[in-house]
Amino acid sequence: MGLDTPRETPHERLGAFLADDLAAVNALIRERMASRHAPRIPQVTAHLVEAGGKRLRPMLTLAAARLCGYDGTHHVHLAATVEFIHTATLLHDDVVDESDKRRGRPTANLLWDNKSSVLVGDYLFARSFQLMVETGSLRVLDILADASATLAEGEVLQLTAARDLATDEGIYLQVVRGKTAALFAAATEVGGVIARAAPAQIAALRSYGDALGIAFQIVDDLLDYGGAADALGKNVGDDFRERKLTLPVIKAVARATPEERAFWARTIEKGDQGAGDLEEALRLLARHGALEATRADALGWAAAARAALGALPDHPLRDMLDDLASYVVERIN
Amino acid sequence: MGLDTPRETPHERLGAFLADDLAAVNALIRERMASRHAPRIPQVTAHLVEAGGKRLRPMLTLAAARLCGYDGTHHVHLAATVEFIHTATLLHDDVVDESDKRRGRPTANLLWDNKSSVLVGDYLFARSFQLMVETGSLRVLDILADASATLAEGEVLQLTAARDLATDEGIYLQVVRGKTAALFAAATEVGGVIARAAPAQIAALRSYGDALGIAFQIVDDLLDYGGAADALGKNVGDDFRERKLTLPVIKAVARATPEERAFWARTIEKGDQGAGDLEEALRLLARHGALEATRADALGWAAAARAALGALPDHPLRDMLDDLASYVVERIN
Repeated sequence: MGLDTPRETPHERLGAFLADDLAAVNALIRERMASRHAPRIPQVTAHLVEAGGKRLRPMLTLAAARLCGYDGTHHVHLAATVEFIHTATLLHDDVVDESDKRRGRPTANLLWDNKSSVLVGDYLFARSFQLMVETGSLRVLDILADASATLAEGEVLQLTAARDLATDEGIYLQVVRGKTAALFAAATEVGGVIARAAPAQIAALRSYGDALGIAFQIVDDLLDYGGAADALGKNVGDDFRERKLTLPVIKAVARATPEERAFWARTIEKGDQGAGDLEEALRLLARHGALEATRADALGWAAAARAALGALPDHPLRDMLDDLASYVVERIN
Repeated sequence: MGLDTPRETPHERLGAFLADDLAAVNALIRERMASRHAPRIPQVTAHLVEAGGKRLRPMLTLAAARLCGYDGTHHVHLAATVEFIHTATLLHDDVVDESDKRRGRPTANLLWDNKSSVLVGDYLFARSFQLMVETGSLRVLDILADASATLAEGEVLQLTAARDLATDEGIYLQVVRGKTAALFAAATEVGGVIARAAPAQIAALRSYGDALGIAFQIVDDLLDYGGAADALGKNVGDDFRERKLTLPVIKAVARATPEERAFWARTIEKGDQGAGDLEEALRLLARHGALEATRADALGWAAAARAALGALPDHPLRDMLDDLASYVVERIN
């Protein structure tokens, strides 16, 4: 299906196909992260933006716009916007999670301080806002404003829901849409909007981004219990130790006996964990088929993402987006 | 000059004149700070928004719009936008400053946690963005995006400049514009823009807000050394103890002998402070007339604010804005 050698990932093929656009995005990001007055801003930003991030979200915007025949330059602004919003979120997340590592490197809050991470995040959010205003499209502004609100709401919801056994799959989905899928969906949708694509195509792009983002996050949560967590730079059971109620545990809690529920209440809600608890958690997940059910959900969302592409024109980029959806769940297949 | 009894402050007279508009702003704020999914959001927001804040910034927007003859409803959206941006900034400021009190009450970061303050701040910023998009005015969006970037840049600049003796009056002014004046200027300017006022009037409104914000901040910094700090809920010398390089000290440093410079380097840059140092600082400020010179600057900015109003139509609100500029510097006059 791919245009290139089968060894390349869909992500690499997208990067090759969109190389000129991506170069323009990177130039714009470098230009806009500068600050005449506050050198701390480009220092902190460069640490994250130039740290070999995958540029997945800006690539989605570029691909959506090109796939719909766009030949202007505003997709570059929107791709940079989306990357700035993402970077601002990472800076604030690392403060909230008190993280000391991201992508195997020390976090900005560790290298500088929480203050810098909070304020530089605010700066990047404001800069993203300036970039999108430059496109002159109120519809694009509306979509990105809504995505920003969903994103922040999801983060707050996660604060209160993460350690509460009453959190069900519906709340989990809201959190995941906030954390990941809202920005994916906005990234693809604004690509279609700026290209003045037909309403059905714009809706399809949005559905693709939403489903891809959800699949992406479920795979992350599954791998945390699934043994392949190394690939994420995490250890098996990190989420359990951090008392994060992710989809596998939510499914196991829903099917728990009273004794099992007491186990989850002690380890997740109260945070009272000892030797052998992770093993017991894995045993309970297996007993109720929670990992298998989570895996099926991820595959279902990836399939939904691919199905949405059916409404879009035949184009090499469409094939790459199709491959990307398969690739996201490949690690659990 | 006032319409009412002389006992009322200009701020109270503005509030009375704009009572219906302010009620609409408060209703909109309450509606938009709600979150169906994350009850933590309205809790944290209400703590700040309903805590008897002066609503000064939204009042500036409402006054500017009405003064220019606006009779629509979008000025209410813009006033709520400005208050949300201000509230988001306060939440993040208290995290950055590690504050435990604001307006005499415990801060949100103390009552809940830093995480909630960071994320609810992000949420309010996103909500402010949605509100302004609803006005459908790209020019308004442009002004508020620029103000947001200036604001965040000023905060970052303050991080690095506050304890650096190389900080001069030019840098101080940038920080003050970021902290205070950028949002004041945007608040008045968007009021004029939404009312489709003439370009010269819009420029005058912007100048008024900018100069008023600068005067406001300089008065704050002066009172910290000036004995009337009680009125601010602060103690004399708080800024000195927190090693904040504000305008009075910047002026004293500029005129310092080598020995005096060593004193400032030790107390502000190194933070090595002991008994008698505050008294010595006050003595040095007096010796170089730094408090008098700072006072003259504040009066100059208040005069500039009043002068800008000359370009605006004759209107009771114009008189109140004039009085407001006088009132801001009254405590130091």
